[in-house]
Amino acid sequence: MKQVITISREFGSGGRSIGREVAERLGWAFYDRALVERLAKESGYSEEFIEKRGEDATTTSSFLFNLARSGATSGYGASSGSIDGSPALSDKLFVMQYNLIRALPDEGPCVIVGRCSDYILRDRLDALHTFIFADAAFRADRIIRLYGERDDAPAKRLEEKDKKRKVFYKNYTGRSWGRSQNYDLCLNSGKLGIEECADIIVRLAQK
Amino acid sequence: MKQVITISREFGSGGRSIGREVAERLGWAFYDRALVERLAKESGYSEEFIEKRGEDATTTSSFLFNLARSGATSGYGASSGSIDGSPALSDKLFVMQYNLIRALPDEGPCVIVGRCSDYILRDRLDALHTFIFADAAFRADRIIRLYGERDDAPAKRLEEKDKKRKVFYKNYTGRSWGRSQNYDLCLNSGKLGIEECADIIVRLAQK
Repeated sequence: MKQVITISREFGSGGRSIGREVAERLGWAFYDRALVERLAKESGYSEEFIEKRGEDATTTSSFLFNLARSGATSGYGASSGSIDGSPALSDKLFVMQYNLIRALPDEGPCVIVGRCSDYILRDRLDALHTFIFADAAFRADRIIRLYGERDDAPAKRLEEKDKKRKVFYKNYTGRSWGRSQNYDLCLNSGKLGIEECADIIVRLAQK
Repeated sequence: MKQVITISREFGSGGRSIGREVAERLGWAFYDRALVERLAKESGYSEEFIEKRGEDATTTSSFLFNLARSGATSGYGASSGSIDGSPALSDKLFVMQYNLIRALPDEGPCVIVGRCSDYILRDRLDALHTFIFADAAFRADRIIRLYGERDDAPAKRLEEKDKKRKVFYKNYTGRSWGRSQNYDLCLNSGKLGIEECADIIVRLAQK
């Protein structure tokens, strides 16, 4: 039996929906929006700030990468060298997020979406790390249905969002986002279907 | 119901064993060694030559990439510019292999291991494309048990073999080998276990 499932996902792939369904079916806690709310409460930062900086920030700072690798993230203080200080704020947020994510599975079994949780929990033997992706047409169709039309073309929205996640992930983990070897299983939700992906993950979580 | 399953795999990950088991359980044809034998019979090349050049060749020629992309692989003749002619031979072999792999699923349902089969059959809607990988320790242990000790350290053997496959794949498909988005599902056999991987693939093949 697993204790924690991490869901990394391409924008529009349905990874969040799969995570929610898996959590519901297993009766586990689900940390997506709930992680932001909790972090806001514990940190004093606004939810908006955390939403904006907690996963998609394209900061060029990478001092935390080595901190995170060594596990020495309980203290920090180094400046990332930014003049306006915002990367340093992002780093500070990342440390809080890092420590919270490390602690969550010990509170009870849970599903965590994004936020480098696969990397943060990489050493837990009771974790199942998943990556959900799909082709651009499937994802474009999905984001229009879920989030509506915008001025930007869907293809551009997908590209920008994925690029931000990729940079954020690389920056804080030193790894390549979406590289299959980072995960235990990678599923093409467009080809296999949302339900089937949830089925596979639920089965594996129960082993 | 699927008609063809392709298995791409890291050296030592057990992908071949998974493929064999999946084929047995489904009662499908299994093309690994059988592909080499058939190609030898139809081409006149020796099995040794095909083994050596059919998947691991580190030729720098890439003229076939565009041919393969356009699907215009029924004829060939361009030289790849090599002085000793061996890359041209590899390319010729690749075209034969390409055409054989394209035709195999129409003979009956089958499982095909490696040889860019995921790429070659990428447009078939009744195909399931899988990538099997595992961490280095799992694979090192496995190759020693399967193929015995050699002078080279297991880590070096893994690295060399994977590098060759990577170069070969890139050369003939233009894609990055092991990038999750090339496949329908990617499974960590070291973490999930050989049996579990076979179970998941068999279930998906029957959908």
